[in-house]
Amino acid sequence: MISPNLTANVEIDGKQYNTFTEPPKALAGERAKVKFPIKDMTEFLHGGEENVTMIERLMTELERDPVLNVSGDYDMPKEQLRETAVARIAALSGHWKKDTEKEALLRSQLHGIVDMGTRIRLGVHTGLFMGAIRGSGTKEQYDYWVRKGAADVKGFYGCFAMTELGHGSNVAGLETTATYIQDTDEFIINTPNTGATKWWIGGAAHSATHTACFARLLVDGKDYGVKIFVVQLRDVSSHSLMPGIALGDIGKKMGRDAIDNGWIQFTNVRIPRQNMLMKYAKVSSTGKVSQPPLAQLTYGALIGGRVTMIADSFFVSQRFITIALRYACVRRQFGTTPGQPETKIIDYPYHQRRLLPLLAFTYAMKMAADQSQIQYDQTTDLLQTIDPKDKGALGKAIVDLKELFASSAGLKAFTTWTCANIIDQCRQACGGHGYSGYNGFGQAYADWVVQCTWEGDNNVLCLSMGRGLIQSCLGHRKGKPLGSSVGYLANKGLEQATLSGRDLKDPKVLIEAWEKVANGAIQRATDKFVELTKGGLSPDQAFEELSQQRFQCAKIHTRKHLVTAFYERINASAKADVKPYLINLANLFTLWSIEEDSGLFLREGFLQPKDIDQVTELVNHYCKEVRDQVAGYTDAFGLSDWFINAPIGNYDGDVYKHYFAKVNQQNPAQNPRPPYYESTLRPFLFREDEDDDICELDEE
Amino acid sequence: MISPNLTANVEIDGKQYNTFTEPPKALAGERAKVKFPIKDMTEFLHGGEENVTMIERLMTELERDPVLNVSGDYDMPKEQLRETAVARIAALSGHWKKDTEKEALLRSQLHGIVDMGTRIRLGVHTGLFMGAIRGSGTKEQYDYWVRKGAADVKGFYGCFAMTELGHGSNVAGLETTATYIQDTDEFIINTPNTGATKWWIGGAAHSATHTACFARLLVDGKDYGVKIFVVQLRDVSSHSLMPGIALGDIGKKMGRDAIDNGWIQFTNVRIPRQNMLMKYAKVSSTGKVSQPPLAQLTYGALIGGRVTMIADSFFVSQRFITIALRYACVRRQFGTTPGQPETKIIDYPYHQRRLLPLLAFTYAMKMAADQSQIQYDQTTDLLQTIDPKDKGALGKAIVDLKELFASSAGLKAFTTWTCANIIDQCRQACGGHGYSGYNGFGQAYADWVVQCTWEGDNNVLCLSMGRGLIQSCLGHRKGKPLGSSVGYLANKGLEQATLSGRDLKDPKVLIEAWEKVANGAIQRATDKFVELTKGGLSPDQAFEELSQQRFQCAKIHTRKHLVTAFYERINASAKADVKPYLINLANLFTLWSIEEDSGLFLREGFLQPKDIDQVTELVNHYCKEVRDQVAGYTDAFGLSDWFINAPIGNYDGDVYKHYFAKVNQQNPAQNPRPPYYESTLRPFLFREDEDDDICELDEE
Repeated sequence: MISPNLTANVEIDGKQYNTFTEPPKALAGERAKVKFPIKDMTEFLHGGEENVTMIERLMTELERDPVLNVSGDYDMPKEQLRETAVARIAALSGHWKKDTEKEALLRSQLHGIVDMGTRIRLGVHTGLFMGAIRGSGTKEQYDYWVRKGAADVKGFYGCFAMTELGHGSNVAGLETTATYIQDTDEFIINTPNTGATKWWIGGAAHSATHTACFARLLVDGKDYGVKIFVVQLRDVSSHSLMPGIALGDIGKKMGRDAIDNGWIQFTNVRIPRQNMLMKYAKVSSTGKVSQPPLAQLTYGALIGGRVTMIADSFFVSQRFITIALRYACVRRQFGTTPGQPETKIIDYPYHQRRLLPLLAFTYAMKMAADQSQIQYDQTTDLLQTIDPKDKGALGKAIVDLKELFASSAGLKAFTTWTCANIIDQCRQACGGHGYSGYNGFGQAYADWVVQCTWEGDNNVLCLSMGRGLIQSCLGHRKGKPLGSSVGYLANKGLEQATLSGRDLKDPKVLIEAWEKVANGAIQRATDKFVELTKGGLSPDQAFEELSQQRFQCAKIHTRKHLVTAFYERINASAKADVKPYLINLANLFTLWSIEEDSGLFLREGFLQPKDIDQVTELVNHYCKEVRDQVAGYTDAFGLSDWFINAPIGNYDGDVYKHYFAKVNQQNPAQNPRPPYYESTLRPFLFREDEDDDICELDEE
Repeated sequence: MISPNLTANVEIDGKQYNTFTEPPKALAGERAKVKFPIKDMTEFLHGGEENVTMIERLMTELERDPVLNVSGDYDMPKEQLRETAVARIAALSGHWKKDTEKEALLRSQLHGIVDMGTRIRLGVHTGLFMGAIRGSGTKEQYDYWVRKGAADVKGFYGCFAMTELGHGSNVAGLETTATYIQDTDEFIINTPNTGATKWWIGGAAHSATHTACFARLLVDGKDYGVKIFVVQLRDVSSHSLMPGIALGDIGKKMGRDAIDNGWIQFTNVRIPRQNMLMKYAKVSSTGKVSQPPLAQLTYGALIGGRVTMIADSFFVSQRFITIALRYACVRRQFGTTPGQPETKIIDYPYHQRRLLPLLAFTYAMKMAADQSQIQYDQTTDLLQTIDPKDKGALGKAIVDLKELFASSAGLKAFTTWTCANIIDQCRQACGGHGYSGYNGFGQAYADWVVQCTWEGDNNVLCLSMGRGLIQSCLGHRKGKPLGSSVGYLANKGLEQATLSGRDLKDPKVLIEAWEKVANGAIQRATDKFVELTKGGLSPDQAFEELSQQRFQCAKIHTRKHLVTAFYERINASAKADVKPYLINLANLFTLWSIEEDSGLFLREGFLQPKDIDQVTELVNHYCKEVRDQVAGYTDAFGLSDWFINAPIGNYDGDVYKHYFAKVNQQNPAQNPRPPYYESTLRPFLFREDEDDDICELDEE
């Protein structure tokens, strides 16, 4: 029966559809409008046909594996998620021998789209523990731990004991001690007070046999700062605790319950001297300590994590922007013409503005992520092969590491924040159905947001990057060369640059606009720094005083970075049949970014107040252009329904059918009385009032 | 043993403290600095001593009730939360008879600070179901359902079946039908297609016996639009389903698992004509339909929810800003001077900027919430007592309702968004510990954010408010009188107003600044509207085209509203000993708001580019002022540890002790082997490779 409410009925090709039956037809209609080959867009996104083939193969391997089936995850309690994660790691382990490094990373990233918990539970071992051994251990040490089973996770599971209850971001302030005892050629690892309990340690509660423990090296009463020590936590064969080890489960978290994060206390735990990772700092059997030229090289393992998180921001964002945009193409709500079908929500200009700039942002993140990955690969190749005695090579490696640290810090911060925002905005754009557990937003948000905190708190990263930008500018004023990423600080022409009638659709003009505001913010902050230090503040005090400015500099510089990376990649590799559609997307991203921060452009004088209306009109214009091809932009991500894992985002657009089926599959309708009917509900509904028969007192 | 890491050790009054032992001492030190009487600040916040006494009594009643104990909630799976919620409703029911309306609302709001699930599970009955009966039923109907047990929730549990799978915000587009059958004087309630399944219905899955069902009234083939019908879902005595009722559990949600949301399908369910709520629209036994002058009066029940949500935004925000600020007062991380104790994070200017404007925002929300509640009480008093035949009185009520609708829409949107943002920013400001389940942020965020979607999606509310603001401006240009909230649109002087050397610390100047930008945005949008309609667009098309502008107008007008409400309340009721501290807070809120949206002030010419530095400096200045008294501002909320329910936010500041204890209480350390050691972990760790003995083929 067709509803009497005419606005909920649609006629297509002479056939009547209603609220329930129309959506797949509507999405097919959107696909028919796409003017570019999806395949070429996918290849652009992933850097060519070869990569796409590899990704598609890995995706198929993941989604066909029955152990990796995530369709019931949204209803799993913590205990079940934790057990399931181990079963999934076991299922994945069959691929380890044959995967190249690139395949292994991609497999893990793709898996992370739907199962961030399992991915990171394994990643703590492979990325953090093994990263520490590889990055900070000597070749002999690396080989030793591989022989022990570390590389294959056989009779061995590593974790990464850095953070303490009282110390997170400030690694140099950690309190756990490693005291060298020359008599026995051992270190004693100790937790000096409860505040120094290792905390958040993924793998400690259930799985880990060993940990890479960050502790202060103490030799002959002297504190040499924080180094890394391999400490055994559990007996390998029985999984019982080693003497002096106390550990426990830190329990419920906001998300990522699949990971068995725990706490560890060390009470005078003895380990052989050889368990200190000695690629850089070394302690000899006579207690002689030699230190590396720059201690931060030991933290190199963390930068890899950051670079991966930029790409992860893309991998996760594409999933949720696809869900929200597909749903927007089929959901109808309200209408402007009585008696006519209601309007698809994608056709509301404000809905376009809520989602399409985020689609463009998702593309931009991929471009910047790929750039950073290349930079990272080059730098680690160098670090792997370096002879630590070669001062020149070491110096060069440190410069590269610093450059990578700066750009990856800002990108990590703003892409992880943006991904959190995309999940959240996309959820809101799906209305109530975004709040259902089965459409994935809630779980994904809860799982994701820790990325904004760990491996460098985003705010701390931004402040540190802002400091670096001001230092670069100060250096430049004193004649030092500028790194390539801040080359625009030398462009004197920017000071006078204004729009002055030029075309705001021209990428060259748009890039110049961003360079001008980035330059303006950094120069102004540098002027202020000079003024404050001349006024008597120490550089540290001046930098503290300029915190807001430092954050702003990092924000603007990073947005400029994303804008530039997007256009550069289009120029370098976009085929002709997708190029105009990519320019539309990049222009939308850039102009929307300008609109969001219009104060900057007015303040720096690149735009005049009257230009703002034009920016708004152009954002509207590009929203319409992008909306027209929206099914193509999202299909180009190439995510199957397994990776979408949200019935309102399925490829066929049959949203209500899939959603209703999912809800019923997970919650089969049986008894109208809840399990607690007799125990709790019935006694409440049928409670009787005490009567009002109160003892009367004789009050004479 | 004191750590060898000197920067983690602190000397106070000649005694040594370390990371673990110092925090309570540090928070006590902050309290000693407070210069105003906390009691007076609390009374200012809650509107006087009498209210504070009532709140404190209600809080004590809540926190002493063992059934309401929330300390284990963070570890409860959905099933247990749902049962617990019913037990808690039963415990609360003992108060219903004696509570005044004001006490009942406050009890529920206070309970909602820590248990939003139970609060809303009950609120669906008391607020939505009973609200519908009260607001849309006749006196006889109300009395009838009260006799049936509705008021006491005895042998009766109501729910509210408005939303459908395919229709949320657009109530007028709902598809469920109610067809009048004159022969039997009944309505037949029917779900015409699966898309019209009632969805999200809180209480339907487990508890409800009856529902207030929104359905299209069909009489003699004519569609009279959506009305409300009471439909019985379950047999009262057996809790079995009534004939024609199909319902199920919609299962896992992002949050609020304590609520048994469900779906309902009606298959030709017959109800007596008397079950249609007929305060306004009526159907006679001969099938004669009389309609009310304005249909929106039937949705009056929803506005109450909105007003409550403004206050809820305050109630919840105060909890999380307290946690984050107390933690910031005791957490040390990094330091600027080697050998000196690390810096308390509250002393970092950027940390101050992250949190203190949100503290000020929390105060501002309370001022606006109180204003709205008064307006709402007055309007509902009028609606309750009105004679529906009195056209004049009805007209006045509709005007009041519209004014309230407009202001409550913007406030609901921006306060619920702000509360979500406060929970999230405060979580991030607590670093990793913010991600622990036991500090409450994750659960609160997941529970909270649905407030941004239901009872009017925030974006839809803003667009509707923006339309109203432009319409007011258009009306004013045609000589119609302006409502008091938009009176500034008549102030011609605003066009020329600029800062021009006046003091940015003067509230009068700050209010003028906000009025100027609100006026500027609305006038400009109105100009554009006139231009578009002259150019041939219909008003609806023009409004669509101006979506971005409408949103901006709502945003700026609402911020102005909050700013004004804050200063007005200070002037009206702040005692002298707290007044300067409140002015600091209000100035921080206002100047930070200007800084965030500096583009507006530049564009409208109230500020010049050079003024922006001054705004930034003043924000820094007020951050320092407010930081100094921060323990006082947060203690003034008067939340006990029961309401904080987060060990890192406890009153005594002994953060690590409470947190470590909580984690161990909820996860007692026992077996180092997880429950799935034998089934899953051991087989993985000790798996054996298949050997490489491959069958050799004879390939000659």
